[in-house]
Amino acid sequence: MHKDRYLGTDPQSLPLARELYDTMRAYPIISPHGHVDPLLLLENKPFTNPVELLITPDHYLTRMLMSQGIGLEQLQGDPLEAWKLFAENWKLFRSTPSRIWMHEIFSSLFDIYELLTPESAEHIYQRINERLTEPDFTPQALFKRFDIEVLATTDATSQPLDTHAQLATLDLGGRVIPTFRPDDVSDPERADWRNSIDSLAAATGESCDSFAGFLEALRIRRKYFKDHGATATDHGVLNPQTLNLAKNDKEKLFKQLLSGQIAPEASATFRAVMLLEHARMASDDGLVMQLHPGSLRDYSSGIASLYGKDKGFDIPVTTTYVRELRALLEEVGFHPNFRMVIFTLDESVYSRELAPLAGAYPSIRLGPPWWFHDSLNGMERWRDAITETAGFYNTVGFIDDTRAFCSIPVRHDVARRFDAGYLSREVSRHRLTKEEALEVAGDIAYKLSKDFFNL
Amino acid sequence: MHKDRYLGTDPQSLPLARELYDTMRAYPIISPHGHVDPLLLLENKPFTNPVELLITPDHYLTRMLMSQGIGLEQLQGDPLEAWKLFAENWKLFRSTPSRIWMHEIFSSLFDIYELLTPESAEHIYQRINERLTEPDFTPQALFKRFDIEVLATTDATSQPLDTHAQLATLDLGGRVIPTFRPDDVSDPERADWRNSIDSLAAATGESCDSFAGFLEALRIRRKYFKDHGATATDHGVLNPQTLNLAKNDKEKLFKQLLSGQIAPEASATFRAVMLLEHARMASDDGLVMQLHPGSLRDYSSGIASLYGKDKGFDIPVTTTYVRELRALLEEVGFHPNFRMVIFTLDESVYSRELAPLAGAYPSIRLGPPWWFHDSLNGMERWRDAITETAGFYNTVGFIDDTRAFCSIPVRHDVARRFDAGYLSREVSRHRLTKEEALEVAGDIAYKLSKDFFNL
Amino acid sequence: MHKDRYLGTDPQSLPLARELYDTMRAYPIISPHGHVDPLLLLENKPFTNPVELLITPDHYLTRMLMSQGIGLEQLQGDPLEAWKLFAENWKLFRSTPSRIWMHEIFSSLFDIYELLTPESAEHIYQRINERLTEPDFTPQALFKRFDIEVLATTDATSQPLDTHAQLATLDLGGRVIPTFRPDDVSDPERADWRNSIDSLAAATGESCDSFAGFLEALRIRRKYFKDHGATATDHGVLNPQTLNLAKNDKEKLFKQLLSGQIAPEASATFRAVMLLEHARMASDDGLVMQLHPGSLRDYSSGIASLYGKDKGFDIPVTTTYVRELRALLEEVGFHPNFRMVIFTLDESVYSRELAPLAGAYPSIRLGPPWWFHDSLNGMERWRDAITETAGFYNTVGFIDDTRAFCSIPVRHDVARRFDAGYLSREVSRHRLTKEEALEVAGDIAYKLSKDFFNL
Repeated sequence: MHKDRYLGTDPQSLPLARELYDTMRAYPIISPHGHVDPLLLLENKPFTNPVELLITPDHYLTRMLMSQGIGLEQLQGDPLEAWKLFAENWKLFRSTPSRIWMHEIFSSLFDIYELLTPESAEHIYQRINERLTEPDFTPQALFKRFDIEVLATTDATSQPLDTHAQLATLDLGGRVIPTFRPDDVSDPERADWRNSIDSLAAATGESCDSFAGFLEALRIRRKYFKDHGATATDHGVLNPQTLNLAKNDKEKLFKQLLSGQIAPEASATFRAVMLLEHARMASDDGLVMQLHPGSLRDYSSGIASLYGKDKGFDIPVTTTYVRELRALLEEVGFHPNFRMVIFTLDESVYSRELAPLAGAYPSIRLGPPWWFHDSLNGMERWRDAITETAGFYNTVGFIDDTRAFCSIPVRHDVARRFDAGYLSREVSRHRLTKEEALEVAGDIAYKLSKDFFNL
Repeated sequence: MHKDRYLGTDPQSLPLARELYDTMRAYPIISPHGHVDPLLLLENKPFTNPVELLITPDHYLTRMLMSQGIGLEQLQGDPLEAWKLFAENWKLFRSTPSRIWMHEIFSSLFDIYELLTPESAEHIYQRINERLTEPDFTPQALFKRFDIEVLATTDATSQPLDTHAQLATLDLGGRVIPTFRPDDVSDPERADWRNSIDSLAAATGESCDSFAGFLEALRIRRKYFKDHGATATDHGVLNPQTLNLAKNDKEKLFKQLLSGQIAPEASATFRAVMLLEHARMASDDGLVMQLHPGSLRDYSSGIASLYGKDKGFDIPVTTTYVRELRALLEEVGFHPNFRMVIFTLDESVYSRELAPLAGAYPSIRLGPPWWFHDSLNGMERWRDAITETAGFYNTVGFIDDTRAFCSIPVRHDVARRFDAGYLSREVSRHRLTKEEALEVAGDIAYKLSKDFFNL
Repeated sequence: MHKDRYLGTDPQSLPLARELYDTMRAYPIISPHGHVDPLLLLENKPFTNPVELLITPDHYLTRMLMSQGIGLEQLQGDPLEAWKLFAENWKLFRSTPSRIWMHEIFSSLFDIYELLTPESAEHIYQRINERLTEPDFTPQALFKRFDIEVLATTDATSQPLDTHAQLATLDLGGRVIPTFRPDDVSDPERADWRNSIDSLAAATGESCDSFAGFLEALRIRRKYFKDHGATATDHGVLNPQTLNLAKNDKEKLFKQLLSGQIAPEASATFRAVMLLEHARMASDDGLVMQLHPGSLRDYSSGIASLYGKDKGFDIPVTTTYVRELRALLEEVGFHPNFRMVIFTLDESVYSRELAPLAGAYPSIRLGPPWWFHDSLNGMERWRDAITETAGFYNTVGFIDDTRAFCSIPVRHDVARRFDAGYLSREVSRHRLTKEEALEVAGDIAYKLSKDFFNL
């Protein structure tokens, strides 16, 4: 691995890029949004094999294989054979972030510096496999080694947080905190909506027969999450439409939906109402609201029925924010206690909508580039498009959003390398002094997330 | 200030970039669109203090402060304290064009070469304050010093142009001309629409009870503006929809609206009709039509009621042009006397819609990147996206669009520096010869605007 | 001509760029989509004069001239005078791909290394004119010289393919194959729709009074094309909407349309139905489906009536794909025999929609940047936006899409130069090894198109 990788290729800027990167890498990792299973950490079992560690849980890998006709079932037999099949198709990932992360994991966790090829596949497999059984390779040992200060998980509305409570008693060298994600009770078109409402009622002892009761139950759960260390909520929606509906109309709508009359329009209205209600509750309890709209979930019915959810077939669609968020911003946009982080999969809104909003509203910060855009070009397009209007200080730091525990440090490292290079070029362009760049480096590596997420 | 700032960082291209910049800086400033108050120049009073000169009138500064919770009211007490508060938050502007313009003003007008910091704030304040009282620092003295050949202001439909007439008698070393902006009478949903119609009738002596009379009154005002030196009109619209309605239907619509029946759809129809009517009138009188759609005005009702209009809360939305402009282009798109300059806040239309239109219709030129996109990255995205389809010769030169009189020369200078760097890189890429680049440099610095705006 | 032109300007990457380019240029040309008239090759007549060879058939040139008021009629008198007029306006094309292609043609075909200027115009004209009469300058001689392995033409539904059959008997050093383009029978709003249906019935002997008969006739023609060497179909549509309609509803719709009841909505439904039907037929017969939506054809009625179709006034509009293609992808997205190449004129969908789809569905490959985006910046934006999500292996190679026979080799050469530079920079960025880049170079220069188009 070249020591200057991802720092940029401008020789003039490189010395400063190295210095900025050294500043950034010294900070522990703040991961305020992700999908690691907390049980993985609590149970602390050794990982099984390279395929289950690195390939099958990573839908960026399995979707690309599928794009050339290789289905998940072909990865589910003998792990060495699956690994070899993967190696034969490794060329598909050239110039993608997946290739970067994989080789970063190879080198940083397994001291493997070879390129994955059909020839090197078995050797690499064995090398990883051996390492997995070593005593310092348990999830908890890795957590310490990764220098994670805070790791936030994502947890459904009525999910008990016992695992988090138990993790809090351990010395992991850092915290594992939950994030409240009420999507299951916010979208009447979800198959599990009605059951999730019932679970919420059961979990809180609050009747959810009325909208007022439902809201009260949500408040109780938000408090429960907060009591277990949560500082944020998470809202995955098709679009960011918000709506300020009169109290009576909300009751009426909720009861109509509860009765089973779930028309598309009523569901859309309910989703828009719920975003605004959570924003109101956030103004009360101070949980930071994370909003990431714009993906058509389970786009392929065949994939969904064969392999299930989250297999790389959630496909982005045009998403606009300005008209949609107006009702919410009219209500709480200037509330001193309200904080919102906005993500997008539609890059055309970076400069048109998101930067102008974040550069004006005190409650809004922009989340880093997301999903397919968590990549060197994606980060460059994002910073280029938003910084001139929103600056650095209306953003939060890097967010890994990953299920793949082992990839957390390398994802942060790649982002820090990119940002170090970016800032060094801003100095070369005479838009920052070196001293300013050094301060910004620490802020985007660590402080912005720590501050805004109250960590 | 580094002498090569904003010329680009490619060492191979730099020598030519310097030469191109020297060519461009030799030209006087043509400013065919802006918002300087002509009274400022006529009254020629000294400026009051650094805060009123540089901060409070600049909504790019106040919106960014607001984005971190600092309201306008915090800038309206003791100016030195306000200046210090601003200096403490100067880091918000890192890598933004506001930071560039401020430091360019510091150095070019006040010989201040320090970075603004909490420590340097008071010293810089005093230095500026002293300079403001010097006799060569009046608006008229600055106008001469700035080497402005033409400065266009923006003036409402029925605005008397006495100030312009008086300015025309002075020796300013350049002209100050009005621009006809009939937005107040073009949008029935504006609160001042009805009164503005009455003012138009009063100003022209033409009854505006009928659409025919209204059009005649507009023609009279267009001629009045032209007689006072105007060469252009300006149209700020939500979207660029145009419509060719039958004469009777226009009369009917106008009367319905006059009667107070102002439904959203009828208003939208009227706005679309008016764009086409002004295009027709432009084909008659030769005033260049400037079109800049796409901003949702007064997005925050709280800001509007607290601080008023134009405080940085006009937020861009998706804006498309091709279907919208068809009616207008069918009518006058090839008229030898019709000229239109199009701006946008939605960068996704640069390559998809605007460059293809400007690269085909003789009447269309593209205005430079606008508002949030008047920035180094914004200019690069714009030139990159439009030049390959529309070339350099279907654009006009830089437009500052500013209210901030002192920022005019530095805005033009930054744009010229950027363009010099851009052209030098085109030569390095073997897409232009040096001789061609030198000719293009003069054209985009001066000649394209002078020619197309008939200046 | 500088030997390193279009390889990029980074001195570190240049040596590898040269090596990659040498690898790529060694491959013959695969041109799986274009608009050369096969009669040109069969008749093998000498070209007439420089204007008819290089200017009037190229609507990228005539539209730009029109954008400055120079109509086609001004190019249709004395060819030398037309050439001079063109030379006087050559500056319009600075930094455009047209300028690159023209000078590449000058140098590679005519040994002309001067810049076109008013002064050099006559000399260049004479030089080209002389060359046109030389015996090695016939279309067939050029075809051999260009090293074309396959050239696909585009041919309407009921077009007889005798010309192709005759060409197949000649030794051209490569194949000329047809492409089936059924647009004339797929859009009831086309003026020639009804007649085209009749022609289809006549060409196949199949009654097209029912939808079943119409489909059968299409199947017959698809087979006829395949028998004449076609490996692909081509679908130019306003938008990529697809629809899976019940059999009875299709019959009903078709009969309603045949009866002359051609409402816009019914026409849109029919177009959406036909895309899905052709996808189904493609799954049967294996013809690769090419889809290029998003252009508003004949935008200017004046140009259409004065000069006819394809004169540069087809203007792109917003085009989305995800929701539109869902019905088709649900039906055949994973069919082992189905292959689709998607193009776009709306760059905002590169990263948002097209790369996510191509990076997941085995049937989808992305066509290269198209029309206005077949340019150095256009190629860079495209590769930057799609590679990180879809990789290199979910694309096909360069496609020239040209009517201008002489521009085929230079268009491929420019694209290869660009890609060589792009890959070399990926190596500098540590995202590819040199060995990987060399393999990718051959794949995108030749193998990806050859494989996916079954050539």
